Amino acid sequence: MRHYLGISDEEFIRSKQVPMTKKEVRILTLVKARIPANGVVWDIGAGTGSLSIEAANLCPQGKVWAIERRPEAISLLRLNIANLAVPNIGIIAAEAPDGLEKIPAPDCVLIGGTGGQLEDILEAVHKRLRPRGRIVLNCVTVQTMYNALSWFRAHEEQYDYEAVQVQVSQLRRVGNYDMMQSDNPICIIAASPKHHMEVA
Amino acid sequence: MRHYLGISDEEFIRSKQVPMTKKEVRILTLVKARIPANGVVWDIGAGTGSLSIEAANLCPQGKVWAIERRPEAISLLRLNIANLAVPNIGIIAAEAPDGLEKIPAPDCVLIGGTGGQLEDILEAVHKRLRPRGRIVLNCVTVQTMYNALSWFRAHEEQYDYEAVQVQVSQLRRVGNYDMMQSDNPICIIAASPKHHMEVA
Amino acid sequence: MRHYLGISDEEFIRSKQVPMTKKEVRILTLVKARIPANGVVWDIGAGTGSLSIEAANLCPQGKVWAIERRPEAISLLRLNIANLAVPNIGIIAAEAPDGLEKIPAPDCVLIGGTGGQLEDILEAVHKRLRPRGRIVLNCVTVQTMYNALSWFRAHEEQYDYEAVQVQVSQLRRVGNYDMMQSDNPICIIAASPKHHMEVA
Amino acid sequence: MRHYLGISDEEFIRSKQVPMTKKEVRILTLVKARIPANGVVWDIGAGTGSLSIEAANLCPQGKVWAIERRPEAISLLRLNIANLAVPNIGIIAAEAPDGLEKIPAPDCVLIGGTGGQLEDILEAVHKRLRPRGRIVLNCVTVQTMYNALSWFRAHEEQYDYEAVQVQVSQLRRVGNYDMMQSDNPICIIAASPKHHMEVA
Repeated sequence: MRHYLGISDEEFIRSKQVPMTKKEVRILTLVKARIPANGVVWDIGAGTGSLSIEAANLCPQGKVWAIERRPEAISLLRLNIANLAVPNIGIIAAEAPDGLEKIPAPDCVLIGGTGGQLEDILEAVHKRLRPRGRIVLNCVTVQTMYNALSWFRAHEEQYDYEAVQVQVSQLRRVGNYDMMQSDNPICIIAASPKHHMEVA
Repeated sequence: MRHYLGISDEEFIRSKQVPMTKKEVRILTLVKARIPANGVVWDIGAGTGSLSIEAANLCPQGKVWAIERRPEAISLLRLNIANLAVPNIGIIAAEAPDGLEKIPAPDCVLIGGTGGQLEDILEAVHKRLRPRGRIVLNCVTVQTMYNALSWFRAHEEQYDYEAVQVQVSQLRRVGNYDMMQSDNPICIIAASPKHHMEVA
Repeated sequence: MRHYLGISDEEFIRSKQVPMTKKEVRILTLVKARIPANGVVWDIGAGTGSLSIEAANLCPQGKVWAIERRPEAISLLRLNIANLAVPNIGIIAAEAPDGLEKIPAPDCVLIGGTGGQLEDILEAVHKRLRPRGRIVLNCVTVQTMYNALSWFRAHEEQYDYEAVQVQVSQLRRVGNYDMMQSDNPICIIAASPKHHMEVA
Repeated sequence: MRHYLGISDEEFIRSKQVPMTKKEVRILTLVKARIPANGVVWDIGAGTGSLSIEAANLCPQGKVWAIERRPEAISLLRLNIANLAVPNIGIIAAEAPDGLEKIPAPDCVLIGGTGGQLEDILEAVHKRLRPRGRIVLNCVTVQTMYNALSWFRAHEEQYDYEAVQVQVSQLRRVGNYDMMQSDNPICIIAASPKHHMEVA
């Protein structure tokens, strides 16, 4: 198993139908998730599994649950897990929030693809997240960014959160030149429960 | 003929081999070029002709010279000029600075693709540019950006210039969502000759 | 009067309280607005007046109505109009949609600051916009971008629209170096009424 | 000592004269540096020390050497190290490449501010870097980006490298709205020595 974060994108098998979180966004997402070495991680909308696999490498004594509903994505996920020989990932073939009730309570929840169920997923996560837990969302659409920010605004008594938009351009050599090729921008929201009890 | 700037990208015939300047960059480039209605414009590295065609619409009493060396780009250029029925464009099939000596002195020079001849092109343009003229470069590589800025730094007694990097993301509807799809960033440098004579 | 678009930012008097639309965003906004030379333009949330003033230069036989509610912005607006000697701007000191009912029907509507009244403003504009008119919105917040896109989605029978996010970085000389200084990203939405009548 | 990466920017004391690498860029830089727990890290142009301090947290059995020439930056660096109680940082008050000859050979070299000595620094680093080492550069100017890429192109027999440009915008709450505030873009180049011996 690799002990560092930052597997190159080329090591994952991909398909056109299942977009993959790119390396720099994976790094930021997983660092912001503050995954404990023995942690339980939920990866909701796991897609190709690039986040699940790197998360699993960060919690060798823990376990990652990859929740994914699309059969073609699940196939890719299985291929990538086998290919990179990651032992500590369980796959839940379901459309979240379905399937979340039967897995252990999470230390960290990664939310990518949400199929329009964002609020229901956030409510389900809210009920199960451990007190020192972290939620990290990757939003690629205006609507998901808005809905996620709205949910955290509505729950600001319960969560501290921060959000950034990140735009990465890869420098690619073309002969004597370096061109910049842009990935699409993504909004990363990272949240922690507030600890009112401690104050009392 | 259209009297406004901002033809949509879909109206130009394109090919994978010949990248096209996208709408927002075309608009910024052509506004910064301050093309007079009766002006002479050189479009060096004309490619698909999107800049030449919109420039020609801005100088109905003037003329645009499209300089391009690649046969497949020249074919596209001819197709697009015919298709959009633009009467005031002349094509120079040459690798600039070759071919520049035989066309009229320019009011505005647009520099896109340069095939590694950037300094020679800038020297040739410098000799011919009219006193109230404008030069606008679009740089997509680190090396072109650096070389162009170096040239203007070396000629700062003769030119005022400004430079911006522009990153555009298109919002594309995907069902109920709007995704952002990023174009590659581009550096636009716009320059005018200084007028020392006027001070004296 | 200037006959080109693209006044430099330094020519406008500004204040910390009243943010100004920067040059490149002004250019894109005003080109996308396709202002007729004799057009009527509404600039809703005019702020420092940089958009109003450049719009007025584009319609020398027309008129721009600058709608602004904040007294300190109105002062700046007056100063900038006087300073740049633009004759064809009228100021409406009101919080839109108030004040819109008494001015002539617009060819072009620019919407910047909206003070939370976005839907009401869009409804008011929708009722008055001329058949060949244009609406261009500049959105700097996630919520305004979402609300504006939602309104156009709900009115897609009546409007064609496009949206881009634009991020501009200025290259600033610092000795022998050029640093990139980023402006904040902005979403520009440009819309035209659909012409169902023509089909019949 | 903290065992996670990603200290918030507010925890560092800063000044206007000494710009600080922002959180997301720190995370990417330090993950790409692949710092071993017992590693030796050089932080060239350490500035406020934000990279040095987070690097030190990643190598609790190793040591970070912060090289910085400006007295006001060294003061800040000392303050931040004391404030965050990081035991394993040594300060070298010198202008690199001066001062590098007397410290242990590095596993990881972070290069930020370079004061125009980039090539000399890269040559000095090249001579001392351990075989499994990493070099990560943060470039904020066009010239540094160009010079660094040129050096790695000239040394492509010896190094594998990748480069990205990263643009981060912070979402800041302003009442009911979230505005995006952009940090300046930065180019991150990460390089590893090639291992020709292994092929034989």
